[in-house]
Amino acid sequence: MPDLMSAETPTCVPEIEFWFDFGSNYSYLSVMRIEALAQARSVRVRWRPFLLGPVFRDLGFDNSPFVLQQEKGAYVWKDMERQCRKYGIALTRPSTFPRAALLAMRVALLGAEEQWMPAYCRRIMQLNFADDRDIGSMDVVSEALEALHLPGQQIIADAQSDANKLRLREQTAAAAAKGIFGAPTFFVGDEMFWGNDRLDDALDFCDSIATRG
Amino acid sequence: MPDLMSAETPTCVPEIEFWFDFGSNYSYLSVMRIEALAQARSVRVRWRPFLLGPVFRDLGFDNSPFVLQQEKGAYVWKDMERQCRKYGIALTRPSTFPRAALLAMRVALLGAEEQWMPAYCRRIMQLNFADDRDIGSMDVVSEALEALHLPGQQIIADAQSDANKLRLREQTAAAAAKGIFGAPTFFVGDEMFWGNDRLDDALDFCDSIATRG
Repeated sequence: MPDLMSAETPTCVPEIEFWFDFGSNYSYLSVMRIEALAQARSVRVRWRPFLLGPVFRDLGFDNSPFVLQQEKGAYVWKDMERQCRKYGIALTRPSTFPRAALLAMRVALLGAEEQWMPAYCRRIMQLNFADDRDIGSMDVVSEALEALHLPGQQIIADAQSDANKLRLREQTAAAAAKGIFGAPTFFVGDEMFWGNDRLDDALDFCDSIATRG
Repeated sequence: MPDLMSAETPTCVPEIEFWFDFGSNYSYLSVMRIEALAQARSVRVRWRPFLLGPVFRDLGFDNSPFVLQQEKGAYVWKDMERQCRKYGIALTRPSTFPRAALLAMRVALLGAEEQWMPAYCRRIMQLNFADDRDIGSMDVVSEALEALHLPGQQIIADAQSDANKLRLREQTAAAAAKGIFGAPTFFVGDEMFWGNDRLDDALDFCDSIATRG
């Protein structure tokens, strides 16, 4: 006998959009944390890689504020040490910061809906922020994919297609259009949350919507 | 019989330095929260009013980043609404932001070690961020002091002495020398914590020191 009730009730899985860049240190914290936190609340993560550099440039900054402002930059790595200790996340201050990671980002865009996306993102972030590897190089991206038993060569070729390159530019423009000015940024519906410090609030907000819904 | 043990053990009350400006919206959250949180952990609060404007100017900004950066500014008031709701703190977006509050700050410096300091700071902050009153005016500062049954006229006269004016300039220079680039900022010993979001971490750090000590 068909279950008419469940056929008529749309399955409403609350979603959180997660906008991030592999070069962003506070995105590192969220990449490492978000999957477990979201799963525990039955929230679906929509991964939204975008390029923070062009967004900063549009806002009039030619680099990360953590580089442009010396005092803030000095503080941020102290803060990162403490935050990583608190969350049990490894940290080695990258010898290059922020690291350009264009290919890794293009792969992330290509894989955003794939099952391997969370693990791939964690792997790239750990290579950057725990192992101090150059995630801008094809070798490192390839290594990350192969560690996950993925067809690295094929994925990299697809990631470098003109269509995928264009999509990343479009996604970056979309980030700016949404009012994003830093990373990580989360959206729950139209509600914007900036910074790893707001990840829990954003997930709480998902719960409040689900309860209302 | 004298208790030799306790006579030899120095009383070690952990302290947190709280650097703030009445014009700063995230300082508002910390002013409203810090006393209860610190008391619950037997931590002593050392109030350190300083002028954020000159610190920003030294760093090359001629106004708050929340004014200079339109996108961040728009976000910040949304964030403030949510944060205030979370903490149960009233909020009316001030019609002037950031509000200069030189006299109120001078009074705060004068009263930093006084018993009335926490209540005075909360009162001024509420006038600014909940009642949208001009805390830059002498009338409003006077009203705040008198609401606390303090001799407003005398305190204001003392606050405007050359010596106290100089002390506020010195305290502001000290803030910059400590690497402060925003408010609120907390220090526990040499350990710096920036932002209301780090108040709990800073207090946890007090506990860890007290345990070690």
